[in-house]
Amino acid sequence: MGASRFESSVYEHRLRAAAAAAAQAGLSGLIITPGYDLRYLVGSRAQTFERLTALVIPAVGAPTLVVPRLELASLRESAVVELGITVEDWVDGEDPYDLVVAALGGGSVATAVTDSMPALHLLPLADRLGRSPVLATEVLRSLRMVKDPAEIDALRKAGAAIDRVHALVPQLLVPGRTEAEVAADIEAAILAEGHSEAAFIIVGSGPHGADPHHEHSDRELRAGDVVVVDIGGPYDPGYNSDSTRTYSLGEPSAEVAQHYSVLQRAQKVAVDAVRPGVTAEQVDAAARDVLAEAGLAEYFVHRTGHGIGLSVHEEPYIVAGNDLPLRPGMAFSVEPGIYFPGQWGARIEDIVIVTEDGAESVNTRPHDLIVVPLPN
Amino acid sequence: MGASRFESSVYEHRLRAAAAAAAQAGLSGLIITPGYDLRYLVGSRAQTFERLTALVIPAVGAPTLVVPRLELASLRESAVVELGITVEDWVDGEDPYDLVVAALGGGSVATAVTDSMPALHLLPLADRLGRSPVLATEVLRSLRMVKDPAEIDALRKAGAAIDRVHALVPQLLVPGRTEAEVAADIEAAILAEGHSEAAFIIVGSGPHGADPHHEHSDRELRAGDVVVVDIGGPYDPGYNSDSTRTYSLGEPSAEVAQHYSVLQRAQKVAVDAVRPGVTAEQVDAAARDVLAEAGLAEYFVHRTGHGIGLSVHEEPYIVAGNDLPLRPGMAFSVEPGIYFPGQWGARIEDIVIVTEDGAESVNTRPHDLIVVPLPN
Repeated sequence: MGASRFESSVYEHRLRAAAAAAAQAGLSGLIITPGYDLRYLVGSRAQTFERLTALVIPAVGAPTLVVPRLELASLRESAVVELGITVEDWVDGEDPYDLVVAALGGGSVATAVTDSMPALHLLPLADRLGRSPVLATEVLRSLRMVKDPAEIDALRKAGAAIDRVHALVPQLLVPGRTEAEVAADIEAAILAEGHSEAAFIIVGSGPHGADPHHEHSDRELRAGDVVVVDIGGPYDPGYNSDSTRTYSLGEPSAEVAQHYSVLQRAQKVAVDAVRPGVTAEQVDAAARDVLAEAGLAEYFVHRTGHGIGLSVHEEPYIVAGNDLPLRPGMAFSVEPGIYFPGQWGARIEDIVIVTEDGAESVNTRPHDLIVVPLPN
Repeated sequence: MGASRFESSVYEHRLRAAAAAAAQAGLSGLIITPGYDLRYLVGSRAQTFERLTALVIPAVGAPTLVVPRLELASLRESAVVELGITVEDWVDGEDPYDLVVAALGGGSVATAVTDSMPALHLLPLADRLGRSPVLATEVLRSLRMVKDPAEIDALRKAGAAIDRVHALVPQLLVPGRTEAEVAADIEAAILAEGHSEAAFIIVGSGPHGADPHHEHSDRELRAGDVVVVDIGGPYDPGYNSDSTRTYSLGEPSAEVAQHYSVLQRAQKVAVDAVRPGVTAEQVDAAARDVLAEAGLAEYFVHRTGHGIGLSVHEEPYIVAGNDLPLRPGMAFSVEPGIYFPGQWGARIEDIVIVTEDGAESVNTRPHDLIVVPLPN
């Protein structure tokens, strides 16, 4: 086992399951270009764009990897060689799309493609296939959404690592320091705690906290600021952490404390709602209803959560309209937030894993508004 | 003008030209999701994936930006607000594809999409449009391929910066140091010389030089190694450098010197072939023919070059089968290489800009195999 992937038998199992799911869905097969699906299926971190790399998994028969000759060496890190997958290489000037269609083995039914396949490759492939492909997400979701024990273990380790970073955050939040300075220290801590990368660092102080996707800036922290800190990244073999806590520099105002307590209740009620059979949208509604009852509905401007694994954002999305029933092994964020434009914002986020009868949170730091004492 | 984009008037001009090119091509318009085309057209560095952000440029009428509400703040860095572009925001649970189709204004002709649009958005959009889109590359290539004076200036600055890094490389190549240690020093130099990022660092020593896409490893340099160093990155406002030189730790063997001299001639002949009206494939053939005459054709396993600008790899590709005639302002790499598996490799790469009667290289370091004296 390399440091960056599981044993080959894990991928062998996934490839068989993917082919079976494609057959079950009445598809001719799956075409997977570089991205999280490819990494999930064969442990490859290839990132080629304009030269086609594609894993072809026919519903019946053995998979084939179509790859530019000059990328052959990159296969070593993946499970492709150990699994004996057929490799069809091609050089500049040749047409790789015909290789894909041949590897698929024909058939007049639809083929599914990975959700990240770029138009550059999708349009010529659709042309060769003679009919519009469908998204492989539908086929792979039941595989990728339900984490196996090795994946759950990886998510727990990532969660514990980001909790250790949050434990360090209060001492970094000193009035006069900029968000960017704090973010640089957090980045170092994320790496020191074992992540391979700091994928995102949001330090949203004061009015910046009201922008859910603010990253960080040269704004200096001030006494009285409410600060949203949303951080995470991949932890070998590549499963992500993602956790948000909100901090107050000094005691919060009565209004902030009041609104935050509603948010905290909304987050807890949503986590408590998680169990097998409950739908994704019911979890979203659980958080939203608490905020709505307190008159705060309009300040919660995003969905309640997103699945997580190799990708920071993946299925299942915890959002209105998603009637997917939860199943044990699903992993996702529960992260309601409230945003008062020009003033302040707050968010609380844990990654939870659906258990047989509820939810396990991989993040265990306190959910309160964390008051950072001001220097004398 | 911000540090990371040109003045708004530059983008206004590009948007008009894009609409005119779409009309000229008989298209209903262009749909541009985040990526280099979006950055080229409005200066936005947005990177949203699963939530649709799309710039809609109808062939007739004004453009519209469809954007998730929680990404609205990210528009500030772009020219969207200054140019008064209509913004249609949407929230989770709403369907953004209908907004795109409405902004396009109907019509029964084909629509073009950016080459990086992921299947996740392309398939539902194609469904709403009622017919398969085509690649916007065909429409935008004449715009993006021909650099304007501001872009040429940016490429020259990036080229000069990476030349300064190559000037430092010989002193870093000391037997006993690992490729990774050398790469870390090169990364620091790339940043110190003004790049915003080191996009790629290849240090391919000895047998690793025979893998064109090797990055770097823990292999220790040894006396007698031939070392391929291929480096570059974006330089504000985002135009890339990309230059390769090959180094020899101590005097090369007669065979290495002999083969390298052929490669050097191939690279020069290819650069000399560049002028308006010559096709991309003729430049590729110019390099390839020199190597073929010397019996080295089979060791040149990739195309001769790629366009460069906001993206490290873009149109025009200098490859067999591309009969595109070169035009003044086009910018691309000329980088033939020879690769002897398990032994060594060499590559020479300059970025050139097509002038009225030839080519200007933005890289001016010597093209010889650079002999690094061994320590006593």
